[in-house]
Amino acid sequence: MMRYPLLLRSVLYRANTVFPEKEIVSRDFGGLFRYTYRDMFQRVSRLANALERLGLERGDHVGSFAWNNHRHLELYYAVPCSERVLHTINIRLFREQLVYSINHAEDKVIFVDEDLVPVMEDLVDELPTVECFVVMTDKPELPPSKLRNPISYEELIQDESDAYAFPEFDEWTPAIIGYTSATTGNPKGVVYTHRGLYLHCLTSLVGELGTDERDVTMPIVPMFHVNAWGRPYSDTWVGAKQVYPGSRPSPKDFCELISNERITYSAGVPTIWMGILQEVRNNPGKYDFSSIRVLMSGGSALPLSLTAAYQEELGVKLYQGYGQTETTPVTFVNVPKSSLDSLSDEQRMRMRTKTGLLLPGLEMRLVDAEGKDVPFDGKAMGELLLRGPWVIGEYYKNPEKTKEAFVDGWFRTGDIAMVDEMGYLQITDRTKDLIKSGGEWISSVDLENVIMGHPAVSEAAVIGIAHEKWQERPLACVVLRPEARGSVTRADILLYLEDKVAKWWMPDDVVFIDEVPKTSVGKFSKKTLREQYEAGQLGAGA
Amino acid sequence: MMRYPLLLRSVLYRANTVFPEKEIVSRDFGGLFRYTYRDMFQRVSRLANALERLGLERGDHVGSFAWNNHRHLELYYAVPCSERVLHTINIRLFREQLVYSINHAEDKVIFVDEDLVPVMEDLVDELPTVECFVVMTDKPELPPSKLRNPISYEELIQDESDAYAFPEFDEWTPAIIGYTSATTGNPKGVVYTHRGLYLHCLTSLVGELGTDERDVTMPIVPMFHVNAWGRPYSDTWVGAKQVYPGSRPSPKDFCELISNERITYSAGVPTIWMGILQEVRNNPGKYDFSSIRVLMSGGSALPLSLTAAYQEELGVKLYQGYGQTETTPVTFVNVPKSSLDSLSDEQRMRMRTKTGLLLPGLEMRLVDAEGKDVPFDGKAMGELLLRGPWVIGEYYKNPEKTKEAFVDGWFRTGDIAMVDEMGYLQITDRTKDLIKSGGEWISSVDLENVIMGHPAVSEAAVIGIAHEKWQERPLACVVLRPEARGSVTRADILLYLEDKVAKWWMPDDVVFIDEVPKTSVGKFSKKTLREQYEAGQLGAGA
Repeated sequence: MMRYPLLLRSVLYRANTVFPEKEIVSRDFGGLFRYTYRDMFQRVSRLANALERLGLERGDHVGSFAWNNHRHLELYYAVPCSERVLHTINIRLFREQLVYSINHAEDKVIFVDEDLVPVMEDLVDELPTVECFVVMTDKPELPPSKLRNPISYEELIQDESDAYAFPEFDEWTPAIIGYTSATTGNPKGVVYTHRGLYLHCLTSLVGELGTDERDVTMPIVPMFHVNAWGRPYSDTWVGAKQVYPGSRPSPKDFCELISNERITYSAGVPTIWMGILQEVRNNPGKYDFSSIRVLMSGGSALPLSLTAAYQEELGVKLYQGYGQTETTPVTFVNVPKSSLDSLSDEQRMRMRTKTGLLLPGLEMRLVDAEGKDVPFDGKAMGELLLRGPWVIGEYYKNPEKTKEAFVDGWFRTGDIAMVDEMGYLQITDRTKDLIKSGGEWISSVDLENVIMGHPAVSEAAVIGIAHEKWQERPLACVVLRPEARGSVTRADILLYLEDKVAKWWMPDDVVFIDEVPKTSVGKFSKKTLREQYEAGQLGAGA
Repeated sequence: MMRYPLLLRSVLYRANTVFPEKEIVSRDFGGLFRYTYRDMFQRVSRLANALERLGLERGDHVGSFAWNNHRHLELYYAVPCSERVLHTINIRLFREQLVYSINHAEDKVIFVDEDLVPVMEDLVDELPTVECFVVMTDKPELPPSKLRNPISYEELIQDESDAYAFPEFDEWTPAIIGYTSATTGNPKGVVYTHRGLYLHCLTSLVGELGTDERDVTMPIVPMFHVNAWGRPYSDTWVGAKQVYPGSRPSPKDFCELISNERITYSAGVPTIWMGILQEVRNNPGKYDFSSIRVLMSGGSALPLSLTAAYQEELGVKLYQGYGQTETTPVTFVNVPKSSLDSLSDEQRMRMRTKTGLLLPGLEMRLVDAEGKDVPFDGKAMGELLLRGPWVIGEYYKNPEKTKEAFVDGWFRTGDIAMVDEMGYLQITDRTKDLIKSGGEWISSVDLENVIMGHPAVSEAAVIGIAHEKWQERPLACVVLRPEARGSVTRADILLYLEDKVAKWWMPDDVVFIDEVPKTSVGKFSKKTLREQYEAGQLGAGA
């Protein structure tokens, strides 16, 4: 076969050649902006020419500090396809993590959304590598700012040529660099190669939960975090109509876009789906979700109650996927196999809470505390190890963390899981959140799911607390629905659990809290809870 | 990202890990054989162990001379995944082409289906490289044969271990070798690498016309020709139930399998679809085609009448794809875009006759006779050039033909095409004007050359004309020298050809014309001839 490299250029090429008439919608600062794939291709070409003019060399790092919008999409193509590297800066990182990651990546230019300029202004003095800032706005005049050498995006590309010869180069060339949203220490850099993104985004398209030309997609998962799960490439590749929800989107914005643009496919974290569900509940009859074919949830475990609510109240299928910053990210998707059709409705609903089936092209193992393989029998738990074309090989300029993350060439996910006879993986916990009680493992995630099934509970997080005899015992931190506060007690929760979990899994205590603390990307921060528990700041159990 | 190679092993791994319970049905010599993906994996492992025991080295060539059945499927995995190369010998080649290709490939062992043993017996004395033959049969005893060192397949694998550690190696390693069905000269060898097959078969799964776990697939396109369009890998990868139609399948066999196994997806050449349509017409009410989601046609242009008949008489959607031996094969698939939904039924039906949309990952150009690019405007025609990860880089041990087949690193398809503004390719002509008769190719140029050898003939053009059973048959349009006009007859021409061309190449008719219409650059305009023939304007055969 021909020595033909796997480059993101292929995605852009097909967009322009096969789907020139298809539409992209972007919620810009002044309202909805619409253009075609061909327009997008032309602006990407102009932007690539502008990057040359800015004096950026091949391999230089270009930062983006932006929401999900069409300019960010243009950066997703122009930067990597001109052999530069896009650093998708996670706007939700803490200040010191932002400074660390931009300096660690050595960004030369940063493209900033208009409304994020103040955040960047606050950092600019600590960012010596950044030579200029490009401000992305739809307004004719740049707002005054103390950014270094500010330029308007639209002015930057305005007079450039529509023609740009996208170069051919090695497929192992870096395309995007992102950083983990670590809860402790500095964020770790992950470099995504053209080859890795190509294979990840192509494989994500396979099967019932992939997208197609007929889909209207809206990536809610941010483009500043793990490549928006690859959607900006996958959806362009198949020619879907794409809707980008823009700056600081609210549940109302999402619901309006779903209704008005006839969204068929969207992807986001459970917190987003909870917010959207609440918005719909608060406004009965206002929104039309009938166009939806698939909603994908990922980033943290999808509670059964949420899946059920979407099914029953909205008539919409909410599916679950799994992945990590280190795996581009998607590695498992919960596709309901035909082999499950004979199960009862309830059994099938339970299967939907499993993490999913391994994507084509990957390999998995489960290993116990001694590193020995455990069988895929639906019972044995082990740490999930992964290999594959879009699994990290190292952390960027970080040999120490790299060493910790691998064993025999396999990436250690840090997640505890089991795999059943049908091939479905179930993540039972993070290795660090697992509760080790008397030599046995208790899954905090499983316990949380059962607790969240209680009608008065809106959120629950379970953490392990030190115990003299058993080493660790579970503590349930529960957020009650407003109307239940004060009436539902600790004893009610424990009674509810009695016939649903093993006796030795029963939490030693239940505390009621106002909300579960979240990380910068919306996941439960159990680290914060553990710290609060140790400092005695949690609310008392009623 | 991890240095993880793209190997067919990944397909096998996922089959066994994620879809162990799924079913494979094979029409064996004694009846239908059924087993699961897990059984298949175990037999593939045994077979790989047996290949070691036969003394085959890494890189050795192993021939298959077989129909679409489960043993052939096992060879598709065991041979390449143990780092050997499967030569899928095309049973439809002429005797001398068979001998040439087996010797050219230097096959060490050949696996032969029971009912094809007589064909191989006839060749064996001319195949010095073949050390032994493995006969594939479900009967306990091998039939007596004059094959060299015959072994029974079932005995070969019977006592081998179920455990085999499939090795990891470079993704550019050859997996399969096939030969073109050349009409003149020797067949040309095409080597398919693991990487090429991996990317081809993965990409074929993308979109509405890809298959999924819920499909029940039946590849009619033979496994001895261009990897059965990749189906044995694609369908296994997604865990579809697979049905292999076995030895010498008739239209009746296909119809029964479709009805009884509830086939949802099948792939074959137009001649096959014509035969199946006839079988259904001859037996009204006998068959149930309601399970079918997609039928794919390829290998030659799909007549509009056939598409319409399937739609109207069977309520079944027959789609078109395009590819070549040199391109693994699929490069275009006619997916009906949502942008076409507003067209009238008739317009949409016409769009279905177009060749299709370029698959993700490929690049195309159209060039005129001078090698200059022509625009994609739905009017300009040019030779189709292709690049991509599953496009040939060279012919096997054939530098001369390799040189002819490429220009500036692009593969010359030898097909004339245009591309419209919606991205749909339409093949308008063959550079060599091949005539497709019953799934085989007749070279019009070759026939013309022979006819023009007749002393009374000044010019001859051969065109394909529609034929109910064979799809196309050759019509010879002959210009006689002035002195011969009125004296040389149709019968004279046919008599002259009788000992010079194969019987099935004989033109169905000869018509005498005043001159062959020419294009602006002086080439025969067969398009004009075909139009004249359809309009009844040609002279009558004398």
